[in-house]
Amino acid sequence: MTDGTADTDSVSALRSVRELDRSDPLAALRAEFVLPDDRIYLDGNSLGPLPGWVAERLHAVAVQEWGQGLVSSWHTAGWYDMPTRLGDRIGRLIGAGPGQVVVADSTSINLFKVVCAALAMRPGRSEIVSEAGNFPSDLYVLQGVVRLLPEVTVRLVGRDGSLEELLGGNTAVAVLTEVDFRTGRRHPMADVTRCVQDAGALMVWDLAHSAGAFPVDVDGCHVDMAVGCTYKYLNGGPGSPAFVYVARRHQDQALTPLNGWIGHDDPFAFAPDYRPAADIRRFLCGTPAILSYAPLEASLDIWDRVDLDTVRDKSVRLASLFVELVDRLDPAYGLSLVSPRDAAQRGSQVSLRHRHGLAVMRALIERGVVGDFRAPDILRFGLTPLTLRYQDVYDAVRVLAEILETGLWRDMPCERGNTPT
Amino acid sequence: MTDGTADTDSVSALRSVRELDRSDPLAALRAEFVLPDDRIYLDGNSLGPLPGWVAERLHAVAVQEWGQGLVSSWHTAGWYDMPTRLGDRIGRLIGAGPGQVVVADSTSINLFKVVCAALAMRPGRSEIVSEAGNFPSDLYVLQGVVRLLPEVTVRLVGRDGSLEELLGGNTAVAVLTEVDFRTGRRHPMADVTRCVQDAGALMVWDLAHSAGAFPVDVDGCHVDMAVGCTYKYLNGGPGSPAFVYVARRHQDQALTPLNGWIGHDDPFAFAPDYRPAADIRRFLCGTPAILSYAPLEASLDIWDRVDLDTVRDKSVRLASLFVELVDRLDPAYGLSLVSPRDAAQRGSQVSLRHRHGLAVMRALIERGVVGDFRAPDILRFGLTPLTLRYQDVYDAVRVLAEILETGLWRDMPCERGNTPT
Repeated sequence: MTDGTADTDSVSALRSVRELDRSDPLAALRAEFVLPDDRIYLDGNSLGPLPGWVAERLHAVAVQEWGQGLVSSWHTAGWYDMPTRLGDRIGRLIGAGPGQVVVADSTSINLFKVVCAALAMRPGRSEIVSEAGNFPSDLYVLQGVVRLLPEVTVRLVGRDGSLEELLGGNTAVAVLTEVDFRTGRRHPMADVTRCVQDAGALMVWDLAHSAGAFPVDVDGCHVDMAVGCTYKYLNGGPGSPAFVYVARRHQDQALTPLNGWIGHDDPFAFAPDYRPAADIRRFLCGTPAILSYAPLEASLDIWDRVDLDTVRDKSVRLASLFVELVDRLDPAYGLSLVSPRDAAQRGSQVSLRHRHGLAVMRALIERGVVGDFRAPDILRFGLTPLTLRYQDVYDAVRVLAEILETGLWRDMPCERGNTPT
Repeated sequence: MTDGTADTDSVSALRSVRELDRSDPLAALRAEFVLPDDRIYLDGNSLGPLPGWVAERLHAVAVQEWGQGLVSSWHTAGWYDMPTRLGDRIGRLIGAGPGQVVVADSTSINLFKVVCAALAMRPGRSEIVSEAGNFPSDLYVLQGVVRLLPEVTVRLVGRDGSLEELLGGNTAVAVLTEVDFRTGRRHPMADVTRCVQDAGALMVWDLAHSAGAFPVDVDGCHVDMAVGCTYKYLNGGPGSPAFVYVARRHQDQALTPLNGWIGHDDPFAFAPDYRPAADIRRFLCGTPAILSYAPLEASLDIWDRVDLDTVRDKSVRLASLFVELVDRLDPAYGLSLVSPRDAAQRGSQVSLRHRHGLAVMRALIERGVVGDFRAPDILRFGLTPLTLRYQDVYDAVRVLAEILETGLWRDMPCERGNTPT
């Protein structure tokens, strides 16, 4: 990990962008993805690029496994075990030992599962703590829980508040996203988890912008439960199934209300009464959507060979280069850095603020630099070390500078326009 | 509809199997599917066969839409509207006018959504009524609701009981599967719905074994809500997303606790508070799993051209032929018909009972006749009119007779072994 020192290296990094690319230990991986020739893609934190092997894998699943194997493929092609098999492979990327992660459903549904489970594990406590700046869809899930269970309340830490002040004897569970989707600011996972558990509550992390972005250590941080998505940094494809982690120590007690047949202890018995599986499989529900798992499986074939410390190292260098280049731009352009300057406090994105952010982003996209915009004024640039070159960062900032210098952005439409995450 | 008269035709049907195939108005559709040469597939009610165009469509979604379009495909490739667009197309198949069906998540999760919505719409009532023979995973969902909401109870009609006796002033919602997965027996949808609504309760139907099997008329039967799966008769692929129907008259009030960003009234605003969409989209939750929608879309390209009355007509004829052929077998074989003899009371399957059913089914599968087995003793044969020939039914019964005649089944292992649904 070079979090502490990388920022100071960035001036020399700028001088030797090409040298950085030449000596990049991840450089060869770019060839394993399909990338459009005409764009610099800085939105892999919204939808990760296509791994090259996906099309072939989809063809095999459709034509051979489904077409020829038909219903027997549930066993012979390993469909049935897909959620646990891929779960363990994602486990390695988030620091979870085997048997604690399954891949299933969406992040929102998985969050509902673990929050309901956590509430039931803390009888007599009725508060969920989160933060006002959490990803909106996570807040929606909590609001849904409250609608269903009116005795439950949600308390939100404001931008300048402290989580610690909200924690108390009535806190059942805290729900936080490790990396802020707008700013890229990263919570200190171990410290926050300890603080929440000291108050007697359970800690649930959303790892949507963490998994595949840098090493995560859920076991080492003694996390209780976590959820995350696989279509951002993990390249699983549009809407690929999400994951859910439940620490082994809780797997006896933790129960989701979303009972489904593959979460049953003996799915093929078709018994009339639900008896949850003894292990993490109890967090599964309905029949796995195999065609959506297949691309993720192809992507994990790449990720299995990737060292997350190397990913983090490159991510920090890419971001430092980005920040350094932006720092050199004319202050009159009106750009400011939203992400923390200290790499240790940052995920794998750089966010900038501009009064006409949407128009600037549209101009960037038109010139082939694809980031995204988050209201009211944030330009967001995702840094995905498996596919990005230092040269891409250099070129992206050059285009940004040209747009601001020439005022090209003034021609862009500026009605509201966030892009999907 | 020929439900009333087809049974009487079945003797002549037997005499002219080849003539029936020659005059089958659906015969040409078989060529639009990929089927293994060496098997007669009577398990399309578990996993429907592969439509021929799926592989090409998956390739286009992966390589062009994802690979080249990247995040912009949410809008430019129509990904974002997939749940409503496919929902309307499934709506036609179940008798639902536009704007009342979305495709999303799994059947179990959708059932959870509508049952919670229905309970909230009947405040002061706390009972869910279902039947003991309902599909187990539907019962699991109800048991999950009860664990979460301890004031709610589930009452189940036994095999010989009457639903009407259970209905009362405390019944909030009745949940039934239209076609019994074991026997193929079909509830009279209009009558049951009326009876439930007369008691002041809401009616939820599971159409897992109905959609694509015969014409369903949810609007005409004044159904309140329904769910169903798309990987059986609708050929959507393993674990393809399920559907949920909510009658337009309820869409103002009905609210699922599974709040997600694409169910929000303005998903791209990323507002902190959940405001449910004004229409059926409020029954959506997380990001749609696009690679699992793509095969369903390819399948619906076929289904769009299919008249359900013609499907039903052929289904009845196939089943009548099957039953007639089985009736002629030696009673000493120990087979008995489980499905109703009256076609009007039957879905699109024929179930037989045999004391050594599992061993018999294994012997059938080994001889290339693929049905499935449901404990303790049911041989289940799904009849999918788009891909089956009358000749297939004739051949299947011939193989069954040979197995019973020769006692081949005695060589088969007979530990428990249901197959996935």
